[in-house]
Amino acid sequence: MNKILVLGAGRSATALINYLLDEACKNSWFVTVADSNLEAAQQKVNDHSCGRAIWLNVTNVEDRKAVIAKTDLVISLLPPFLHTLVAEDCLLLGKHLLTASYVSQGFYSKADEVREKALIFMGELGLDPGLDHMSAMQKINEIREGGGKLTAFRSFTGGLVAPESDDNPWHYKISWNPRNVVLAGQGTAQYIKDGKYKFVPYHRLFSQAVPIDIQGMGTYEVYANRDSLLYRSSYGLDDIPQLIRGTIRYPGYSRAWNALIKIGYTNADFPIMNSEDLTYYQLTEAFLGNNNRASTLKECIADLINEDVDSDVMHKLEWLGIFSRKKINLKDATPAKILEELLLKKWKLKKNDKDMVIMQHEFEYTQNGKNYLLTSTLVMKGEDSQHTAMSKLVGLPLGITAKMVMAGKLTTPGVNIPVLKEVYTLVLDELEKMGIVFQDSLVEI
Amino acid sequence: MNKILVLGAGRSATALINYLLDEACKNSWFVTVADSNLEAAQQKVNDHSCGRAIWLNVTNVEDRKAVIAKTDLVISLLPPFLHTLVAEDCLLLGKHLLTASYVSQGFYSKADEVREKALIFMGELGLDPGLDHMSAMQKINEIREGGGKLTAFRSFTGGLVAPESDDNPWHYKISWNPRNVVLAGQGTAQYIKDGKYKFVPYHRLFSQAVPIDIQGMGTYEVYANRDSLLYRSSYGLDDIPQLIRGTIRYPGYSRAWNALIKIGYTNADFPIMNSEDLTYYQLTEAFLGNNNRASTLKECIADLINEDVDSDVMHKLEWLGIFSRKKINLKDATPAKILEELLLKKWKLKKNDKDMVIMQHEFEYTQNGKNYLLTSTLVMKGEDSQHTAMSKLVGLPLGITAKMVMAGKLTTPGVNIPVLKEVYTLVLDELEKMGIVFQDSLVEI
Repeated sequence: MNKILVLGAGRSATALINYLLDEACKNSWFVTVADSNLEAAQQKVNDHSCGRAIWLNVTNVEDRKAVIAKTDLVISLLPPFLHTLVAEDCLLLGKHLLTASYVSQGFYSKADEVREKALIFMGELGLDPGLDHMSAMQKINEIREGGGKLTAFRSFTGGLVAPESDDNPWHYKISWNPRNVVLAGQGTAQYIKDGKYKFVPYHRLFSQAVPIDIQGMGTYEVYANRDSLLYRSSYGLDDIPQLIRGTIRYPGYSRAWNALIKIGYTNADFPIMNSEDLTYYQLTEAFLGNNNRASTLKECIADLINEDVDSDVMHKLEWLGIFSRKKINLKDATPAKILEELLLKKWKLKKNDKDMVIMQHEFEYTQNGKNYLLTSTLVMKGEDSQHTAMSKLVGLPLGITAKMVMAGKLTTPGVNIPVLKEVYTLVLDELEKMGIVFQDSLVEI
Repeated sequence: MNKILVLGAGRSATALINYLLDEACKNSWFVTVADSNLEAAQQKVNDHSCGRAIWLNVTNVEDRKAVIAKTDLVISLLPPFLHTLVAEDCLLLGKHLLTASYVSQGFYSKADEVREKALIFMGELGLDPGLDHMSAMQKINEIREGGGKLTAFRSFTGGLVAPESDDNPWHYKISWNPRNVVLAGQGTAQYIKDGKYKFVPYHRLFSQAVPIDIQGMGTYEVYANRDSLLYRSSYGLDDIPQLIRGTIRYPGYSRAWNALIKIGYTNADFPIMNSEDLTYYQLTEAFLGNNNRASTLKECIADLINEDVDSDVMHKLEWLGIFSRKKINLKDATPAKILEELLLKKWKLKKNDKDMVIMQHEFEYTQNGKNYLLTSTLVMKGEDSQHTAMSKLVGLPLGITAKMVMAGKLTTPGVNIPVLKEVYTLVLDELEKMGIVFQDSLVEI
């Protein structure tokens, strides 16, 4: 095995491709990066002697199959709905497949066939999902092996701006998919506390954010994710009385974001006809309905969201531009799309800005009659707006796993996520060599 | 033309099929009623000499085509996603097609072909959408023909329980699709007031219901529909400064329904694992999250929804059973599904209960320098829980339109909704002969 194919050369691919090209010469691999935007692929490969960039329209069956047929391992960074096509080809042509995306039910349904062909199909190999599984499972298994019984597992991740580059009132800049920033939390968050289910609908989620102490960093805040219960079985935590996953933000973010939800700016369900002709002011006004008892638009909105007109939340909204008389200039867009475009401008990382990723797991367990709290924290900052912590922490677990597959060090075939010991041990060991390491603290409680 | 095919013999088909069979002998037609449930079709046809019931699996292409090939006019009461299949067959085989469902973009895209083949494809021939279009367009055209200029159009419809059968604290019983009762208003309501767009997100919609005076009936309340802007162009109202469509309920309904939304009971986005083992009490408790400062569940919920624990809203919630210790007994169901099953029991029309449909249009217009308000109201009660006003008002406009197509009285081919004068005039005239008539009142304002 010496040929790796990377499908997709978007922004999030940089760290992965750099890692693979670095390793390629050492290991006598050849890396092909395919994208429908040839220039993007060429930029990433940058005339490297162990790699090449090619143009590929991945929806063209014959072209796609021809390219996959010539490789040993496929890494798909395509939008999730295209993974299915690629997976079918890989299964047919007998190629291994890695992705950073959520593993769908459709994917899992192929598990038997994949196993029979001794292939490795693995998803959720990025940051979250990805590194969260690996780092949590390592601790969970260590606790179990030491005779401990888990009573609570809390896991929080945030893609943030580093404090030294934080210069806006929201204390947030975008380091990942902006669409997901806007739609975050839509649905119902589910978690378990005191052995009971808890369901938090979207319209209450951000008002229920709670403070969290991040080791060495101070106080942040977290809100619950939709998927806390999703990994209960994969983690072997079916009977645990407390289980929650959440998202980390700087204090105050959730309260202000909740104001955008209350006003209606996060709705993605209807296009506004002729939105290009409206101003942000007019759109904000349109959300008022008949709630216009106060005299100015700002007073009406303050009234609607139950905040003082000169409050911190109102200041954040004004800074964002939702009271601006500028034209929206987006045709027939949903409120969510209009908000996304606004955030892309206002929350953009400047060239030399550093982003920051925080991941913190909290494990409570009983061992020999005593109760412990183990806190395990990773804080990583990026170098600048191109070399972000986010892109490294998404790309490196995927790249390292690829290396292990190429070297024949992963032996479990089938469709999996990286909760397997053989995967997380190798990945976390190599990340540690790069200085990417969780800080642990253990206290009796 | 003498053969009519009705696809679907569900509960809402009764009034339509009875009307068609009555007309069939007078006009020498033969009516075939096809359903995958033969018994249901047989019950509806009831050995009528001018009709027959047949078994049909409509997803079987060959069977479906064979049946459609033998008819002149198809009336589809199938779920909307199946209309497309039927429409393709009708186009291929040259048959007219009528439905009571919303006309989709996919349907409209076939308009040229349908017109070229001189076929009539018409949708939205029920109550709402259906009779609302017909009755509104008649008045709108009369006002225009009299030289009036419309300045406001408000249109409200409600499927309710008749006052004499109203014996529950919600003052509501189910006379149509219960799923739609639960999901009502999800999305963002859009309307126009003072020449400006208004957008009302779901989480504010029911708290903004307003009182309405229904002619001859007293005070009810209305909340805005999602689709107020949808018919702006079809009605020729592109420049109207006020346009709203809404849903009529008895006073107090919206405030209590809003409580169910706030708690989280209308969410259809996630299945609750093992919901069959939970009680309603436990589910309600799960929605509390960390909001459990008060001592009892009822106090916590009252606190969450900002109501007194002995308020009318709390009384309605308790009557519904959301604090009951009974098991839910529905496997892996969403909250919305659990609520739907609860409402089906609690809001069921008893055998001799009468339902009631109210439709009220309000037109403001200027004529010869004076301003007028024309109010046009239909109130119709059902006979009992089988012979509902709802099923008559859904079935009769469809049946009458079918009769007009069979008689060759409709001459406009293509894909349409009944805003055409030739359609609404004939349908409204025949409804009037049956005593189904709008009461008008005109005042200068």
